[in-house]
Amino acid sequence: LLSLVIADAALETVPRSIVKHPSVTRDAARKDMHAEHMLLDRSYHHAAMLKLKDASRRGRPDLVHFALLEATSTPLYVKNMLRVYVHTITDSVIIIHENVRLPKSYFRFEGVMEELFKSKNVQFDGKMLMELKGISFPDLIGRIKPELVVGLSRLGVKSSAEEVARIAGNDSLLVVGGFPRGHFSPAVSREIDHMHSINEQSLEAHVVIARILYECEKVLEKK
Amino acid sequence: LLSLVIADAALETVPRSIVKHPSVTRDAARKDMHAEHMLLDRSYHHAAMLKLKDASRRGRPDLVHFALLEATSTPLYVKNMLRVYVHTITDSVIIIHENVRLPKSYFRFEGVMEELFKSKNVQFDGKMLMELKGISFPDLIGRIKPELVVGLSRLGVKSSAEEVARIAGNDSLLVVGGFPRGHFSPAVSREIDHMHSINEQSLEAHVVIARILYECEKVLEKK
Repeated sequence: LLSLVIADAALETVPRSIVKHPSVTRDAARKDMHAEHMLLDRSYHHAAMLKLKDASRRGRPDLVHFALLEATSTPLYVKNMLRVYVHTITDSVIIIHENVRLPKSYFRFEGVMEELFKSKNVQFDGKMLMELKGISFPDLIGRIKPELVVGLSRLGVKSSAEEVARIAGNDSLLVVGGFPRGHFSPAVSREIDHMHSINEQSLEAHVVIARILYECEKVLEKK
Repeated sequence: LLSLVIADAALETVPRSIVKHPSVTRDAARKDMHAEHMLLDRSYHHAAMLKLKDASRRGRPDLVHFALLEATSTPLYVKNMLRVYVHTITDSVIIIHENVRLPKSYFRFEGVMEELFKSKNVQFDGKMLMELKGISFPDLIGRIKPELVVGLSRLGVKSSAEEVARIAGNDSLLVVGGFPRGHFSPAVSREIDHMHSINEQSLEAHVVIARILYECEKVLEKK
């Protein structure tokens, strides 16, 4: 089975070290929530985030929302021919189960993700939709055991998305970065067997996902 | 030049007939805004929308956000080889100018759109980013004067996205629906020269946009 991991994704709850910052407490009061249960979001917590390590790569749940929606809207996912995971920058892994319809409304998506970080899973009608595990990227690879780990990055070998899809075949794991700028973390990079770049200029994560899954779909349908 | 219109899009401000409904006034109080300046949003105004005509096709700014971001994140748009428009269900047209970077954060997108509906344009540093015109779909076609109007709809002739891109060529206008279900309005349908369906099952608007623009890019780059 084909798998996709959105890696080093800028999705996490507000870190303990900044829960008392005014830009965070103000947002918590507005939402009537405990600060540590809210998603870290640069749109609201910019001032507080200046203190964080790797701040430029964190707090972009909007970007992860687009990337995940792109993946789960594809015929491959809908037909259970694709498994989808999010690996976060703080080394958690979200397992998206089959037939999950993620909300397009950001407000609802935020609610689902906050529930996931709090309860470690989201169920509906007794069916598991998503799970959160405290495992690293290498641990995730160890569980999936793909034949090949294919990374998409501007640092990779120039290749068309068609070429990458042909190389990937059926049992690969595709890795796309879930951060606004920069490159994969060393722990992620080390696991990648082939690194490809499918465009001259850098592309948004959701565009890379749309293109590579579309080309994989064409390859898998011909079989 | 290639053009894309997101047509009959579920994007509008709260209609006058429901500004006094409790689900609307509550939301207006929370946002500290005049109700008629807010975007109509099913996530918040569901109860009020039951009274509206065509309610099932309205109030989905999240869906239009995804579709627009998909279009403006493509290399074709970034290289000024694609013009992007939104035609709304209430017969307004949004002209997206060149080099506009739409916010991925829904909260910011909502703010920009509310500003657009209020002021009829959005500028930055003296540069026009977006305009809102009170014109119909046929009027828009009359202004763009495309060689061919190509609609994407499940009711169309079964064709691959590659085939549609080859037919479309350089001076066509592509039309994708910006509504959650159903088909183009009669006024839009009448203007479409060729109607194509690029998938057996229905696809989200943003997926159709990603695929057709990617295939058009391949055709245009070969020239």
